Amino acid sequence: MGESIPEIVRDPAAIERRSMEIIGDELARMKKEIPTENLPVVKRAIHASADFDYAENLCFLNTPMEAGKGAVKAGIPIVTDTNMAKAGIHVSSLTPYGGSVSCFMADPGVAAIANEKGTTRAEIAMEKAARNFRAPVLVIGNAPTALISVARMIEEGGFAPSLVIGVPVGFVNVEESKEYAAKVCRKFSIPAIIAMGRKGGSSVAAAIMNAIIYEAAGRKI
Amino acid sequence: MGESIPEIVRDPAAIERRSMEIIGDELARMKKEIPTENLPVVKRAIHASADFDYAENLCFLNTPMEAGKGAVKAGIPIVTDTNMAKAGIHVSSLTPYGGSVSCFMADPGVAAIANEKGTTRAEIAMEKAARNFRAPVLVIGNAPTALISVARMIEEGGFAPSLVIGVPVGFVNVEESKEYAAKVCRKFSIPAIIAMGRKGGSSVAAAIMNAIIYEAAGRKI
Repeated sequence: MGESIPEIVRDPAAIERRSMEIIGDELARMKKEIPTENLPVVKRAIHASADFDYAENLCFLNTPMEAGKGAVKAGIPIVTDTNMAKAGIHVSSLTPYGGSVSCFMADPGVAAIANEKGTTRAEIAMEKAARNFRAPVLVIGNAPTALISVARMIEEGGFAPSLVIGVPVGFVNVEESKEYAAKVCRKFSIPAIIAMGRKGGSSVAAAIMNAIIYEAAGRKI
Repeated sequence: MGESIPEIVRDPAAIERRSMEIIGDELARMKKEIPTENLPVVKRAIHASADFDYAENLCFLNTPMEAGKGAVKAGIPIVTDTNMAKAGIHVSSLTPYGGSVSCFMADPGVAAIANEKGTTRAEIAMEKAARNFRAPVLVIGNAPTALISVARMIEEGGFAPSLVIGVPVGFVNVEESKEYAAKVCRKFSIPAIIAMGRKGGSSVAAAIMNAIIYEAAGRKI
């Protein structure tokens, strides 16, 4: 006798709607006071990880939702620190606004310079983003050195990204990178969403960016 | 006065080594008995998420490490359920063995069939994988319908993947899909690594595959 195939919902829109309801219900039970405008980001980060720590660890600085939605609508370029985060961002929703997503990590020039300087490709890739674009949206889900590089350019070089999503993951440099970036973004009034602590990742980074894109586009879930 | 830039390790190999040491130390403190051969997968899943739940929720069926390393060395094709997971797999380590990574989610034919049948593209993409390849390695980090589709083809169609990495994430269909897939893989002796419960994701899926690729290639961390 066969194992019984589970009875499941197959309509993608219904799956997403029900997921968001469940997350909303569990957040309500946790009695977390999350400002309404930030809720789509918190819910999408939890949706991408099934980890309710994102109800606690996300730090929103300088009205990042307004800034992010404005940037999306203005077609401002998005730059990620990994090709994985790039692959997760819903680029076809950006097309009507003329937006784009780039990642410079795999550029041969970037690897060569990183090697020469004895640092990470992620750091050099962010320097390239700052040279190529005036005020990009930066989505960092992996490399703390990328986040530190961005914060240093803000502090020392007058760089002013439209929005920084700073959610690198890991055990070395990660917490320090986020503390530093949060201080710098506060001081220089740069809109930012930062996952304090160790957690994050490319999936969560893309999910946060997508939440902002869907809000900008008025997509209802 | 400026914020002080954190003193950090910049050498990528040193960062990775130190990360794995920290994860190893915390696992030791948790007193988790993880078989040595599975440890690289557990550690990489934690490395990708900073979430120690992966020390508890990963289920290893039918010596998946041996099966996975053998598949990598034999150049057996890897198929993912998302382009994001595909982007996270270290494909250049597969090149010496003639291996490849595919994802059929964005194929126009797949979307058309899914629409017609009222199901997800992920399900149809896995059916395409089973048609195109005899015994692929399947890496599922997002869609429970993909995992159910694979388990159904194993049970009903005599499909025998070389390895199933089943770590979809979420709140609808996800736990059911994993319970069903685990039962079917047990019954039909299919090697599998499944994250029981809600957690998973494309980052974790790619990290598990990479752990196996690095073990096959004898890369030391």
